[in-house]
Amino acid sequence: VDEFELIDRYFAARSVPREDVRLGIGDDAAIVCPAAGAELAIATDTIVEGTHFPSGTPARAVGHRCLAVNLSDLAAMGASPLWCTLALSLPRGAPEWVGEFADGFWALAAEHDVALVGGDTVRGPLSVTVTVHGRVAPHAAIRRDGAGVDQAIYVTGATGSAAAGLASLRDGRAAAGDELIDRFLYPAPRVREGCGLAAIATAMIDVSDGLHVDLERLLEASGVGALLDVESLPLDASVVERYGRERALDFALHGGDDYELCFTVPAAREAALRERAAGWACGIACIGRTRAGSGLAWREAGRARTAGACGFRHFDGGAG
Amino acid sequence: VDEFELIDRYFAARSVPREDVRLGIGDDAAIVCPAAGAELAIATDTIVEGTHFPSGTPARAVGHRCLAVNLSDLAAMGASPLWCTLALSLPRGAPEWVGEFADGFWALAAEHDVALVGGDTVRGPLSVTVTVHGRVAPHAAIRRDGAGVDQAIYVTGATGSAAAGLASLRDGRAAAGDELIDRFLYPAPRVREGCGLAAIATAMIDVSDGLHVDLERLLEASGVGALLDVESLPLDASVVERYGRERALDFALHGGDDYELCFTVPAAREAALRERAAGWACGIACIGRTRAGSGLAWREAGRARTAGACGFRHFDGGAG
Repeated sequence: VDEFELIDRYFAARSVPREDVRLGIGDDAAIVCPAAGAELAIATDTIVEGTHFPSGTPARAVGHRCLAVNLSDLAAMGASPLWCTLALSLPRGAPEWVGEFADGFWALAAEHDVALVGGDTVRGPLSVTVTVHGRVAPHAAIRRDGAGVDQAIYVTGATGSAAAGLASLRDGRAAAGDELIDRFLYPAPRVREGCGLAAIATAMIDVSDGLHVDLERLLEASGVGALLDVESLPLDASVVERYGRERALDFALHGGDDYELCFTVPAAREAALRERAAGWACGIACIGRTRAGSGLAWREAGRARTAGACGFRHFDGGAG
Repeated sequence: VDEFELIDRYFAARSVPREDVRLGIGDDAAIVCPAAGAELAIATDTIVEGTHFPSGTPARAVGHRCLAVNLSDLAAMGASPLWCTLALSLPRGAPEWVGEFADGFWALAAEHDVALVGGDTVRGPLSVTVTVHGRVAPHAAIRRDGAGVDQAIYVTGATGSAAAGLASLRDGRAAAGDELIDRFLYPAPRVREGCGLAAIATAMIDVSDGLHVDLERLLEASGVGALLDVESLPLDASVVERYGRERALDFALHGGDDYELCFTVPAAREAALRERAAGWACGIACIGRTRAGSGLAWREAGRARTAGACGFRHFDGGAG
């Protein structure tokens, strides 16, 4: 069995059925039917072994991650997932590896009703590029540059858990099956939450490189500054327990790989936000407010706290 | 200057303006506006150094090729190009390399009015994945599986020139600037021709792996066979001159990298085809006819000729 047949068996032959896919994998291109009047969000992200996930990461987690990071980009625009393509660079053709990779991919694809409509497989070091397409109502996409001054800044879930999970993988403080390690290996893109923030959030970004640096990007795009409270940061109790509060804060601010959403909301819409978010298991937390000017300042017990901009850049291999 | 800044300078900051791109590179996802009622064709292809192009290929040619092979897939559906994303795995950050790669990419993008709406850059061996989006009228996409029996089989341009160019690169029979080498380095996707075949061709495929094996795919998808005339094959005179007729035929049947279109046309539409193709510089040639059954048989001077299925598979590095 060569790799082409494996890919056929695990990908081309399986699918998430969607009525808007007129022609799926197998021709020179797929044919899809966008909904009348809707806009499309398009995002593409590559993950590379040794840079975006450690060597030896379970195949199922790699299959999950390549789609999760892209769905997170759609979520950050308030777009609901439709279709994707998958380009796989594969160093080895072990059938179990490909099968488990496919399982991880399809489990998440089915959860979010995403159809795989195209792909390519080449021989090379392990890396995966996914391009996703999402639907958004006309002019309803939530961009990075829409934040005004004096708006509340929220974040979904808790940041730092994934970085603590990665640290645990490395320092051996926990074994496979650990909840924090799973937060790193199987990030949950906030798709439902992102779509629910249409007409509520004025600006949004997903937290992939670390809350501090990603929020900085949102503020810079919007041309505003922010004052934030360290005490309001949603920390995961098991991270604090395992690594102490200071390290938990560092993970929360700079850890990366959270795939939570960070967004701004004007006062007039905070009631609508609370109502909308009431049913979200991940919860939301207000961590501060935008203000005129630029840059973001962290405060702890009423005093300034230096956060430092040490969020990693994947290109440098910092996430290894 | 690090690679991120280079990519920003050469890609994010340049663009082909399109009215249907509401938000380009720079946010979590791009936002585009599909035309009301149209369908979208989506294709993705990866090219890898050492597999799809030789090590040392000029950067400009790599930038051209990564988009050309994808535009060829759209052309093979009869779709006109709209938007694309670019995922680049880059081993080195030499500014000249990136600049020339970008020049090759943008020259072809501008020629076909394709907007770059997303991208990602990672460190790794040189490879490029492009996903393209094209527009096609409802139900008008030209698939591989639509050929009926007793239809004429046509091919655009001449096949084998690119393979002869690659051979010339390797055997030193020609130098940079050679017309055949350029046919290999800068394949011209038949976008205009593909779009012009709507309501004329019943089935179509682009010739990327070799005319014989690609036509075999079309016939198999359509459930028909074919009888073809070797004498009708459009050979490039300079290939025959440089390599002799037998080798030119081998290049034409099995060479790959042509990016010509191969398509079927019923008798009732052949007049419309001739009219449509009258203005095409590349020309078209009828090379045989479909028939009931399966498989394709080649004939020369009225006698059978074995063609053999030696079209290469990129995955095995055969194109290197």
